[in-house]
Amino acid sequence: MITKRLKLHEAALTDRIELTVRFSEVDMMKVAWHGSYVAFLEDGREHFGITYPGVGYADYFRTGYVAPVVNLNIDYRQSLRCGDRAIVETRYIYSEGAKLIFEYVVYRKSDMAIMAVAQTTQLFMTAEGEIQYADPDFFVEWKKRWLNK
Amino acid sequence: MITKRLKLHEAALTDRIELTVRFSEVDMMKVAWHGSYVAFLEDGREHFGITYPGVGYADYFRTGYVAPVVNLNIDYRQSLRCGDRAIVETRYIYSEGAKLIFEYVVYRKSDMAIMAVAQTTQLFMTAEGEIQYADPDFFVEWKKRWLNK
Amino acid sequence: MITKRLKLHEAALTDRIELTVRFSEVDMMKVAWHGSYVAFLEDGREHFGITYPGVGYADYFRTGYVAPVVNLNIDYRQSLRCGDRAIVETRYIYSEGAKLIFEYVVYRKSDMAIMAVAQTTQLFMTAEGEIQYADPDFFVEWKKRWLNK
Amino acid sequence: MITKRLKLHEAALTDRIELTVRFSEVDMMKVAWHGSYVAFLEDGREHFGITYPGVGYADYFRTGYVAPVVNLNIDYRQSLRCGDRAIVETRYIYSEGAKLIFEYVVYRKSDMAIMAVAQTTQLFMTAEGEIQYADPDFFVEWKKRWLNK
Repeated sequence: MITKRLKLHEAALTDRIELTVRFSEVDMMKVAWHGSYVAFLEDGREHFGITYPGVGYADYFRTGYVAPVVNLNIDYRQSLRCGDRAIVETRYIYSEGAKLIFEYVVYRKSDMAIMAVAQTTQLFMTAEGEIQYADPDFFVEWKKRWLNK
Repeated sequence: MITKRLKLHEAALTDRIELTVRFSEVDMMKVAWHGSYVAFLEDGREHFGITYPGVGYADYFRTGYVAPVVNLNIDYRQSLRCGDRAIVETRYIYSEGAKLIFEYVVYRKSDMAIMAVAQTTQLFMTAEGEIQYADPDFFVEWKKRWLNK
Repeated sequence: MITKRLKLHEAALTDRIELTVRFSEVDMMKVAWHGSYVAFLEDGREHFGITYPGVGYADYFRTGYVAPVVNLNIDYRQSLRCGDRAIVETRYIYSEGAKLIFEYVVYRKSDMAIMAVAQTTQLFMTAEGEIQYADPDFFVEWKKRWLNK
Repeated sequence: MITKRLKLHEAALTDRIELTVRFSEVDMMKVAWHGSYVAFLEDGREHFGITYPGVGYADYFRTGYVAPVVNLNIDYRQSLRCGDRAIVETRYIYSEGAKLIFEYVVYRKSDMAIMAVAQTTQLFMTAEGEIQYADPDFFVEWKKRWLNK
């Protein structure tokens, strides 16, 4: 057995957003194209950074870092349709390393059925592309503020 | 350690395509947005279905099945830039179960450096949404033809 | 002078939505990619069909018609940035012919500056692709209900 | 009559590219989504800048300018389907003003039927957002080289 189902880990912080599936996000099979979820997750992650300020794109730019996604893993369970309201729950998973791990649960709002479960991993790099193996200062501050660590 | 790096498996069949990174696929960091790779992989998968006829979208429709992606897993190694030529190598990984597993290596053509490694898993469903736990006839035929199995 | 600036016509009905510019909708110039507006307009049009029921995609499907966009015309005035809140005003422009004409004004919410002005024209076709030169019944009903015509 | 059909003007220079319609570019009606054409046109425009060097995104960046699209106008005539090969003909239309006007004809390759006709207008701005009312030096050079003007 090659593929394993994604398992959710305990979340230190969570956030939720709602979105509507766009016509342009739906494919010939009349369901949300599997690639459309990448933007759904990013919407969730960006809003997480507004709810818990300090880990959004604007923060990275301001502090001179970027936080590229180095792994994206999505399990698709059921299908969203055009016009469906969805809820994206973004869960911050604490990790010792200098990385940002988020897990996501995408629900169909009408019945809260799970449509997808996902995980992204981001590293920190300087604008020049140098990977940071220790937490950058802004991330140390963020952890202190929101996690008391 | 939560995330593990994707490991490639032995491929029964492989195919390659070339593509150019579009301006609209590049983000504020001036590199191909991580979500853009989902279409790159799909381009590779579709072309694989032309090279080894029988496992493309048109074939599913014709035979009354759909083959939704149930897992997508992408490791990003380096970044493609606007206008870069990329090569997507699509590798069919043989599996006992009634599923389609592809692995992908995305290269930057200029130096053949690896930009991303990925895996997708597809199941077979009837148009009515019933999952098939045994290979549909058309897939039995396809395996016989291309894999001698 | 070849290109002419779009001029707005008197709207019979109007509707407004709000949206946030996604990271994936922004380009290397750090502004919303000009192609991203097509989905913004479609969001507006779809919501118009919820506010004034009868002219949304679901209605077309249900009644056996499609309403393809045959012309799209967008004037870009200023640039939206990542995370900007925008307001899309969708304006139904009455027309004698069997067509749907919408005009749009896209505002940046923070100062209500106009970012773009646009127009789309849709025709009615049967699912078989036959253009309708007279209003289909469902559209006659819709006009009666919302325009008293 | 509000909307007028786009008329093509005499082209000073033309270029052609081929592309394949992606699964992710097709909508529920099983045809290329009307917004997908914006990237098709951009592909054509970018390749034009390779064939007639000096007016591609890289050139703008290098010379300190940007050339935002200020108007986009697309007439849709017929529909492309998933996997269709298309040809985009990009036509440079000479204009006295400090602007770039391109017209486009999108053909279905199999029968060279016209799928869409389009026009884009771009202005030149400095990176700071100042519109240029006279041709920037690099554009003067480009016109001299390719148009003998």
